[in-house]
Amino acid sequence: MPTAAILGCAGYAGQETLDRLLAHPGLDPLALGSDSLAGQRASSLDPRLNGGLPPFVTNAEALAAGAEVIFVCLGHEEAAALEPPPDAEVVVDLSGAHRLRDASLYSEWYGFDHPRPGAWSYGLPELFPLEPPLVANPGCYATAALLALAPLIGAIDPAGVIVDAKSGVSGAGRGLKAASHAGFVLENLTPYRVGTHQHAPEIEQALGFPVCFVPHLLPVRRGLLATCYVQPLADLRPLLEDAYVSAPAVRVLEEGVVPELSRVQHTDAAEIALYEDRATGRAIVVCAIDNLGKGAAGNAVQNANVALGLDETAGLRLTGVLV
Amino acid sequence: MPTAAILGCAGYAGQETLDRLLAHPGLDPLALGSDSLAGQRASSLDPRLNGGLPPFVTNAEALAAGAEVIFVCLGHEEAAALEPPPDAEVVVDLSGAHRLRDASLYSEWYGFDHPRPGAWSYGLPELFPLEPPLVANPGCYATAALLALAPLIGAIDPAGVIVDAKSGVSGAGRGLKAASHAGFVLENLTPYRVGTHQHAPEIEQALGFPVCFVPHLLPVRRGLLATCYVQPLADLRPLLEDAYVSAPAVRVLEEGVVPELSRVQHTDAAEIALYEDRATGRAIVVCAIDNLGKGAAGNAVQNANVALGLDETAGLRLTGVLV
Amino acid sequence: MPTAAILGCAGYAGQETLDRLLAHPGLDPLALGSDSLAGQRASSLDPRLNGGLPPFVTNAEALAAGAEVIFVCLGHEEAAALEPPPDAEVVVDLSGAHRLRDASLYSEWYGFDHPRPGAWSYGLPELFPLEPPLVANPGCYATAALLALAPLIGAIDPAGVIVDAKSGVSGAGRGLKAASHAGFVLENLTPYRVGTHQHAPEIEQALGFPVCFVPHLLPVRRGLLATCYVQPLADLRPLLEDAYVSAPAVRVLEEGVVPELSRVQHTDAAEIALYEDRATGRAIVVCAIDNLGKGAAGNAVQNANVALGLDETAGLRLTGVLV
Amino acid sequence: MPTAAILGCAGYAGQETLDRLLAHPGLDPLALGSDSLAGQRASSLDPRLNGGLPPFVTNAEALAAGAEVIFVCLGHEEAAALEPPPDAEVVVDLSGAHRLRDASLYSEWYGFDHPRPGAWSYGLPELFPLEPPLVANPGCYATAALLALAPLIGAIDPAGVIVDAKSGVSGAGRGLKAASHAGFVLENLTPYRVGTHQHAPEIEQALGFPVCFVPHLLPVRRGLLATCYVQPLADLRPLLEDAYVSAPAVRVLEEGVVPELSRVQHTDAAEIALYEDRATGRAIVVCAIDNLGKGAAGNAVQNANVALGLDETAGLRLTGVLV
Repeated sequence: MPTAAILGCAGYAGQETLDRLLAHPGLDPLALGSDSLAGQRASSLDPRLNGGLPPFVTNAEALAAGAEVIFVCLGHEEAAALEPPPDAEVVVDLSGAHRLRDASLYSEWYGFDHPRPGAWSYGLPELFPLEPPLVANPGCYATAALLALAPLIGAIDPAGVIVDAKSGVSGAGRGLKAASHAGFVLENLTPYRVGTHQHAPEIEQALGFPVCFVPHLLPVRRGLLATCYVQPLADLRPLLEDAYVSAPAVRVLEEGVVPELSRVQHTDAAEIALYEDRATGRAIVVCAIDNLGKGAAGNAVQNANVALGLDETAGLRLTGVLV
Repeated sequence: MPTAAILGCAGYAGQETLDRLLAHPGLDPLALGSDSLAGQRASSLDPRLNGGLPPFVTNAEALAAGAEVIFVCLGHEEAAALEPPPDAEVVVDLSGAHRLRDASLYSEWYGFDHPRPGAWSYGLPELFPLEPPLVANPGCYATAALLALAPLIGAIDPAGVIVDAKSGVSGAGRGLKAASHAGFVLENLTPYRVGTHQHAPEIEQALGFPVCFVPHLLPVRRGLLATCYVQPLADLRPLLEDAYVSAPAVRVLEEGVVPELSRVQHTDAAEIALYEDRATGRAIVVCAIDNLGKGAAGNAVQNANVALGLDETAGLRLTGVLV
Repeated sequence: MPTAAILGCAGYAGQETLDRLLAHPGLDPLALGSDSLAGQRASSLDPRLNGGLPPFVTNAEALAAGAEVIFVCLGHEEAAALEPPPDAEVVVDLSGAHRLRDASLYSEWYGFDHPRPGAWSYGLPELFPLEPPLVANPGCYATAALLALAPLIGAIDPAGVIVDAKSGVSGAGRGLKAASHAGFVLENLTPYRVGTHQHAPEIEQALGFPVCFVPHLLPVRRGLLATCYVQPLADLRPLLEDAYVSAPAVRVLEEGVVPELSRVQHTDAAEIALYEDRATGRAIVVCAIDNLGKGAAGNAVQNANVALGLDETAGLRLTGVLV
Repeated sequence: MPTAAILGCAGYAGQETLDRLLAHPGLDPLALGSDSLAGQRASSLDPRLNGGLPPFVTNAEALAAGAEVIFVCLGHEEAAALEPPPDAEVVVDLSGAHRLRDASLYSEWYGFDHPRPGAWSYGLPELFPLEPPLVANPGCYATAALLALAPLIGAIDPAGVIVDAKSGVSGAGRGLKAASHAGFVLENLTPYRVGTHQHAPEIEQALGFPVCFVPHLLPVRRGLLATCYVQPLADLRPLLEDAYVSAPAVRVLEEGVVPELSRVQHTDAAEIALYEDRATGRAIVVCAIDNLGKGAAGNAVQNANVALGLDETAGLRLTGVLV
């Protein structure tokens, strides 16, 4: 059975990736990397973890452990500097370090000069063919925006596309910052990084045109909903339905069914709803995902599955109708 | 001292209006109307209410009590049928029953034929001159959208204006409905009534052109934030700053200050922030209000103050820096 | 493969039971009963449900469908009146209708005279031997209190036991009531039914002595935490550890590990922590469960598994380390 | 008009104290101390602050500014080291630095040796006579527990008193820590510092006997509810009602009125409810306060008012019936 290593296992994305591996019938967690937890047993991260898992090692050790699959759940800059082992079958980078093909954009959008530019495949398998071994896992906002918009290219006016997105607080990671303090988040809603969020160029790269992207911080633990406004040039519903007719992780909702963030929470699925605004002729495409699921760990494991030729949904949380 | 009657005192808007009257130095609560609580003492609504207030009477009795100011906090259809007493100095209707000048629109947007069409003044005193005695208090979404957009008319392209709004659950009232059940609201976010919300024609009436308006239900108790997307034709900041330079209830935030729903919660103030999206040239105008404050009871009392020639801010919650 | 019928599938407990059946390798959903949804397809309850499931039928039809396992997710009084089919291998009643052995208690605690008193087995398999076919699934609060306290009987003073419990709003069901309105629940905490909650006699019946039980309503969607205060007469930790050493759904936390409601949310597991208060000599036993998981549907399916001789954990959500 | 200085104005307690001063007719904010904001204008803390307030100064400068009233909103250890100016009429310390009369307890409960032991008056004016100028403002948990329990001394069994308390996240301050991260707090509930919380000895000091005190962290922004379990030796209701008959900030609820955290949120009031548990004979006393109001800044300003002979409620938020 192929084995996997996780680098940065103590962050949200790392822990969620481990969660999927625990349920994965064909991918064995070989090495759990975490510089802060190295030397401790797995249960030090979470008491739900017990026997059967190796203790934490450093990220460098996890990288060198010889796993066929490597999930990189590190910070952007740390991930950018990483040298992937030549014999890994697939390396999925959940950070933003390899999403932008034009490495010169990193200084503006990520605040550092990219130390190791290279060609990584953009891993959103419903929309783009995957080219392992090097796979850049998309940003959570980009995932939602692209699932909603990419199938519509050519059938919407590329000018004036608006993506008004709302994300739960786990999207900002486990690190301590004022904007993640519960005394700020609870009973609040704020736009943030308007015009400067690093997922904007990622969306533009994939669509071929810029959109006006405004993220908001929601007082929820996890989950993300993107409300996308477009000027339709054709009937959009068939395009969405055709795009995802055989996509196990994406549901296009029937007319009249309201998309709900809570329904995709704790899952690796995406939900897409299409509306028409009669007053202005605009179409509204809403995409809901769990930022840690389809927006991060779920999609990463899906990428690994595709790269390895496994069942695309192995380890994913797609069924179930939790309230 | 002028006296006030509240009709529908047991709903959110009614209770919040009473709250302002309790703090009002120049307006005396004469009659508290509530058909469900009639005959009970004031404290039956809330244990914080005690001596000094009259017991509840029926709404009909409250209407006939001879108050100079009447706050109508009833359902749309009930309010539409009301005959205002001829000797009231000001009647502020917090429902939607008198917001639309074209009475024929009511069947489509409110689901009933208007029984008593008439000319009511649209009571948003920062933007429109008030003409008492009959004052229609604007919808909460319309208030936020108009505070953000009305000063920009002529300086933005009227085509393609988007209003992506998010409101706390109290905006849907105290009545029991599935969409207000905490098991639905908590950890959730949903768009609703896309293209069919009754505040859309109200916004169009005031702006002179339709906008694409999509409301979302937030998992917060109260508060509303409208993110408005426009194509600017001129420098917008001076227009906003000029419009509100002497408006005590509206703050235009300096560049770099992030609007927060929580900062206007429990207040009668509005906050407006202006952003530019370099990638697309769009401007984003964000307005935050408390849906029950500036979006309902606070604005209603402000209207009454203006109509009576009192201090515009009497009874309002505008100062304070609660965390 | 044995088949299952669910009665009351449109309520929280019914939907969650269906959720477990969807993941169950050895129990086939034969009939989905719901008087309100009868005749509609499964997806009318939730868009995540699709092909492969039968349409809804009435509860009477579901009861008569010939399933080996019947999950009764009806209201207390409706469930009390039900006549279980004689050939069912196991009937698990998730309501309170068959929890109290002394049928005369129903008028006081449930507000109705029990129409069909009978001997049902109390289905908490970690603590009590199961005697199918008739199984009363415990109340959520009782489950948490008993998991914390039952192993300690004889080692604690039966006088003065306090159970201070806190539950998410889904514990009150999907029905519309003022106390479940999000405008009441959000940013709130209230005790309720102090001294009159129907889980109190259920706890007393199982322990053999009364406890002082006070439930509180939490502003969370799901999850329940019971903080139990006892006067220890012996070392309690070994008793807890021994009780659950081979219980797959109950974790006794090591000293120093803090119990978290969120860690058991969306799962069928229970977590128990033991503390000592040096100042008073009291011991504190904290038990966290998901009120819809171990507190309802998860335990119900576990009961069915035990009754049928299947893997006790089949269909349950016990693994995973979701953030 | 007497003047006031605030030290530590950028923390929650400091900002809330400033909030009360803004509404105070007889106490003028002379100096706003904050080492992190020194030199910046007041609006740097919050855009709601504007003209009329002095810029921030260092805490040392604020202390030396010559104000009649000094509010100390610093960390425990920093406050303990402070030398109060001899000519201040009242110094209210909102930290824990002067709450425990036995200075030797600080090393155990606060983790530092007290550098300046001294006799400070314990400032809970409803229960204890105030002796200015040096006033220790009680801890938020202690305030709730003592308001519930102190009037009952002599009428309850001092053995076996339980205080199960639940607080919103602002109780832990504005500082960044893992337990205040919204990704931890939202949809969660945890006990914490069981048996080791520094408010336990404070409660014991005031009552004369230890209680079993367990605090829990609630997913709310602010507010605190303490559920206290006692063995009554007499009729308790008259004792509570007598104790607070002339206390403007404390309401004893009539039988049947449920205490709500949300009703005291954003206020300086306390609500107390009394219940009897027939099954065990225990009495339950529930006290709800806002941890930042009656539990901190509101009580601090009340102390200053009493010390200066002003209206006890000046600047406080006690009226109003916000939803």
